[in-house]
Amino acid sequence: MRNKQYVLIPAGGSGSRMGSHVPKQFIPVVGKPVLVYTIEAFIRANPETEFVLVLPKEHFNTWEVIKKEFLPAQNIKIVEGGATRFNSVKNGLSLLPGTGTVAIHDAVRPFVSKRLIDDCFTAAEKHGCAIAAIEPKDSLFEMKDGQPFSRNRTAYRLAQTPQCFSLKEIKQAFNQPYNAAFTDDASVFEANGGKLHLVEGEYDNFKITTPEDLIIAEYLIKGINTDLL
Amino acid sequence: MRNKQYVLIPAGGSGSRMGSHVPKQFIPVVGKPVLVYTIEAFIRANPETEFVLVLPKEHFNTWEVIKKEFLPAQNIKIVEGGATRFNSVKNGLSLLPGTGTVAIHDAVRPFVSKRLIDDCFTAAEKHGCAIAAIEPKDSLFEMKDGQPFSRNRTAYRLAQTPQCFSLKEIKQAFNQPYNAAFTDDASVFEANGGKLHLVEGEYDNFKITTPEDLIIAEYLIKGINTDLL
Repeated sequence: MRNKQYVLIPAGGSGSRMGSHVPKQFIPVVGKPVLVYTIEAFIRANPETEFVLVLPKEHFNTWEVIKKEFLPAQNIKIVEGGATRFNSVKNGLSLLPGTGTVAIHDAVRPFVSKRLIDDCFTAAEKHGCAIAAIEPKDSLFEMKDGQPFSRNRTAYRLAQTPQCFSLKEIKQAFNQPYNAAFTDDASVFEANGGKLHLVEGEYDNFKITTPEDLIIAEYLIKGINTDLL
Repeated sequence: MRNKQYVLIPAGGSGSRMGSHVPKQFIPVVGKPVLVYTIEAFIRANPETEFVLVLPKEHFNTWEVIKKEFLPAQNIKIVEGGATRFNSVKNGLSLLPGTGTVAIHDAVRPFVSKRLIDDCFTAAEKHGCAIAAIEPKDSLFEMKDGQPFSRNRTAYRLAQTPQCFSLKEIKQAFNQPYNAAFTDDASVFEANGGKLHLVEGEYDNFKITTPEDLIIAEYLIKGINTDLL
């Protein structure tokens, strides 16, 4: 039997500037908020998935309206975010049980495929951890004392999400004190002695962060075959 | 007095698969090939700029038609590409004098700004070399014996172009024997003992490599203010 699958979506903490304007995950694309597409991607991969959504308190009402319209029957718990991403994820984890597998996923990565979700959960069951990552397209430099040095880009990977973990291990990792070196959930896991395991990500699994990204999102959602352009 | 400014555009070698189909730099966006926008960006920055374009032989005719229509008065030399990018750039350098400054720039990065071009030439006159680069947006892993380790992304930069060099120094660097570790022109310069110097690049200065990139290119060229979306 497979482990029970959970998805934790950290969508803004109480201390972030996200509170001051409509954050990207609530922006409608072709009539539906980005976050709804993201959640639907995981439901398509496994209809039994349970969700925890971490939000700033001032967005709880907005979310309730969206949920009622687009995902009325879905099991989605919500919890307030903390001052940092670390605290937000920690708050989210507190609502989850001590066993099973959790995918921590960006609210604004709606184009994650069923293949990638399945691969991440399967690899995390085996290795305790599975992080979607891609090879950089551009050459890379490392800065040392302000001086750049060329590095072989094939020896590097850029992190995406999902970042999947055994709930037991990731909960332990988030019991560490906060450290500014925690850049993502993988780094928290690693700092607790966990060994990272990567899964081949996808270039389409991009994070919607700029207005240009919203244009591409609209094309992809409309199902326009951009390969024909 | 400023150094004389040259631009070298390696746009496909004789051995590349680029010969078999219409390469991205010739695709028209809003009625003009991508490569023409790229060249015009450098002319806007400095009308005195001289160009060397490196092309596979089978594209010489296509280029002549494009040049006649869009850039009839411009001084643009052409030379055949080699089997690798290294050889293509080397062929291009052979047409340039031993003094002055050269910007080596991707044919499919049309959105390079006057600010970035000027900064690169100015810094290269001072330091012998100036490479446009940006900080990665995503967390980074380094692979060691197949095992990924988290790295602090603020200590890394991703290379863009222009990559500007003193002609004297870059010609010397391209006299080295070819090495598969040469991933870009900066790495050739560095392998010859040159010290790299970076200039802050721009996220809009992206390389058109996917159909999605062409969509964004069209928006940017039409001057649609994507900030309002």
